[in-house]
Amino acid sequence: MELVANNKVVGGWHKRYRHASQTTDCEMTFAIFLPDIASSGKKVPVLYWLSGLTCTDENFMQKAGAFKAANALGIAIVAPDTSPRGELIPDDNEKSYDFGLGAGFYLNATQPPFDKHYQMYDYIVKELPEIIESHFPVTTQRAISGHSMGGHGALTLGLKNSDRYTSISAFSPIVHPTRCPWGIKAFTGYLGNDKSQWEDHDAVLLMQNKQYTTARPVLVSQGSADNFLDEQLQPWHLQKAAKAHNYPLQFEQHEGYDHSYFFIASFIDQHLAFHAKYFA
Amino acid sequence: MELVANNKVVGGWHKRYRHASQTTDCEMTFAIFLPDIASSGKKVPVLYWLSGLTCTDENFMQKAGAFKAANALGIAIVAPDTSPRGELIPDDNEKSYDFGLGAGFYLNATQPPFDKHYQMYDYIVKELPEIIESHFPVTTQRAISGHSMGGHGALTLGLKNSDRYTSISAFSPIVHPTRCPWGIKAFTGYLGNDKSQWEDHDAVLLMQNKQYTTARPVLVSQGSADNFLDEQLQPWHLQKAAKAHNYPLQFEQHEGYDHSYFFIASFIDQHLAFHAKYFA
Repeated sequence: MELVANNKVVGGWHKRYRHASQTTDCEMTFAIFLPDIASSGKKVPVLYWLSGLTCTDENFMQKAGAFKAANALGIAIVAPDTSPRGELIPDDNEKSYDFGLGAGFYLNATQPPFDKHYQMYDYIVKELPEIIESHFPVTTQRAISGHSMGGHGALTLGLKNSDRYTSISAFSPIVHPTRCPWGIKAFTGYLGNDKSQWEDHDAVLLMQNKQYTTARPVLVSQGSADNFLDEQLQPWHLQKAAKAHNYPLQFEQHEGYDHSYFFIASFIDQHLAFHAKYFA
Repeated sequence: MELVANNKVVGGWHKRYRHASQTTDCEMTFAIFLPDIASSGKKVPVLYWLSGLTCTDENFMQKAGAFKAANALGIAIVAPDTSPRGELIPDDNEKSYDFGLGAGFYLNATQPPFDKHYQMYDYIVKELPEIIESHFPVTTQRAISGHSMGGHGALTLGLKNSDRYTSISAFSPIVHPTRCPWGIKAFTGYLGNDKSQWEDHDAVLLMQNKQYTTARPVLVSQGSADNFLDEQLQPWHLQKAAKAHNYPLQFEQHEGYDHSYFFIASFIDQHLAFHAKYFA
């Protein structure tokens, strides 16, 4: 692992690392925030943050304003990249923002040429926590959160791995990707035309089909002025599924907030406190 | 004025505007944060934030994490650009990061071809406050702060206009530009070779020569791990000048912090509280 940035912040540390990933078969970059108490050797729980389309590990760390609350609560935050990267990594032929580089959708691709490197599900759920837990002063307590495409990632990875994450949250998530343009495009490209292969990566369907061992608490925050609300996000599908199956979903709509990091910065402290409640 | 962004954040609003500036003879963009109480018609004081080399109005607004504290204190924040911009604006022939576009140094250039547009001093001190105070629910109470080149701007504009700003602060400022490479390059290009013309834009010299009507309180924060500390920033010159003239300078060195926005995000709440004390 190569340390590529190291910045003291609010008494703790922001660090970026580059490493060779076996799962994605390329170099990956991630960032970690370590609260001040981690420097004195105390092991802290970890919130994994999954970013949205076009983002890297940097967006959350630079824009979310999460460090003061995370430091006060004693929580580390890990932000991976949103796809494999590099000259050898296949991209969308049309170089669009919503497929290929910067748009891994947190699944294991099965379709060539994407199947070789686009293994973001295994990278996030398995390889990355192993790296984090062997290199940093952290416990094996994990929570997962994310924004937009990363909200989809947090919900699907969280529901499918309720043994690994104690709580789940999302800002402005894609909740029903099998039914919205972003999801249909990505799933067709990464998983192929057989839609039965898509169901395992759709939070609404996972909730409807009870594809979880333990119903971990979920917090979803959505802005009412979000440009993508009606066409892409459609959170009411998740609310309906949760209600039908009595799933512990705390859904909050916030008047006037949009899809930007200004929304995340406004409510990240609440999300951190939510996750802190479930870290034993 | 054209509104180019409008984002709700922590109950208040972040807005970006583009407008034709008479002073810089080109279109300028600035951003403003308005705390929630401004929406109910209450007039609030304004902190002007001057950014560093290469920045625009966006860096502080996206990365400083200042909104929660500013909202709680009821302070508006205005972030201008760091130079005139546009196809017709002359740039450094070498397109360097430290002169020309993104590097206006908050002075009025006297040397062609820069003198026509690079009038950032008058823009920040005169034109921008007139615009802000005629379009937004703000009082005429003003404070000024900034980072690096913007710290130089805050100190020099603040000292020279102690009737206009009630308090001054800076992160990692260039305090003695007549004696450091960044300053010498910029002043030569904008003001010419006659060094007597430079003295009016050097915080250390302004303090030494008592070029202020009222000694407004100054807070300076400096990280000890700042890459630019020894060659460019040299804050001890300011400490020495303040001590010699009994100027009310509160200087704080912070162990381990660097030149990045992670440093600003760590101490911006303290700076906001500092300025709030002096707003009557």
